[in-house]
Amino acid sequence: MDPNCVFCAIVSGAAPASVVHEDEHLIAFCDLMPVNRGHLLIAPKRHATNLAELPEQTGALMFPLAQRLAALIRSSSLRCDGINLVLADGRAAGQTVFHVHLHVIPRMVADGFTLHGGARPATRSDLDQVAELLSGEL
Amino acid sequence: MDPNCVFCAIVSGAAPASVVHEDEHLIAFCDLMPVNRGHLLIAPKRHATNLAELPEQTGALMFPLAQRLAALIRSSSLRCDGINLVLADGRAAGQTVFHVHLHVIPRMVADGFTLHGGARPATRSDLDQVAELLSGEL
Repeated sequence: MDPNCVFCAIVSGAAPASVVHEDEHLIAFCDLMPVNRGHLLIAPKRHATNLAELPEQTGALMFPLAQRLAALIRSSSLRCDGINLVLADGRAAGQTVFHVHLHVIPRMVADGFTLHGGARPATRSDLDQVAELLSGEL
Repeated sequence: MDPNCVFCAIVSGAAPASVVHEDEHLIAFCDLMPVNRGHLLIAPKRHATNLAELPEQTGALMFPLAQRLAALIRSSSLRCDGINLVLADGRAAGQTVFHVHLHVIPRMVADGFTLHGGARPATRSDLDQVAELLSGEL
């Protein structure tokens, strides 16, 4: 655990998050700047700055969880026409939180998303609603 | 195997590809429209249209392979400041080949990449060079 890392603070409970899933190794919670409602982040509980620091055994868990969350989002009442999985490894790739995480992004036709645009702030209340709507179904 | 699928044709050897890695379950090859040199695609050998059709056991193999390929690209002579992993599930998410695949995209500072732009055609010869450069190191 990195004492200066906001995702470690989320894992420990010291920082708030709208958590959708948690198991021994991984946590999934709502992005604070969702592209669309249901935009989630999957992160390892144990601090890893980037792909190189992430144990492969943990990486092997992240993709199936993304599949399950994508299926969950698709089958939920959140409107969604597609899903992007996106991971930014390094500042040049757009990484801004240096605790490795995989975005699960619900997409809609013509929603205007690009890797660098389209995100809008959401309220905590709305994020909690989304988390509640999803977390019961996993 | 889907007889109308170009990635199945690559797996069977009926269509050309610059292959970087191949094992029992997965194949990794150069994207024909690379964002930057070294832009790879990881696909399951067995046809799966999308995330929902992909067995989780296969998904569990894709992410560690992406980690290994990212490390490989970073440590190679290809210039690279970062890596994006991107998967498009469904037309609205930008999926154009309906055989599930994960992009491993080397990034450079200010290379102008967005999810919908920045790609340029490459020659087969250059793709083969990149594949040769990388495939021996895995």
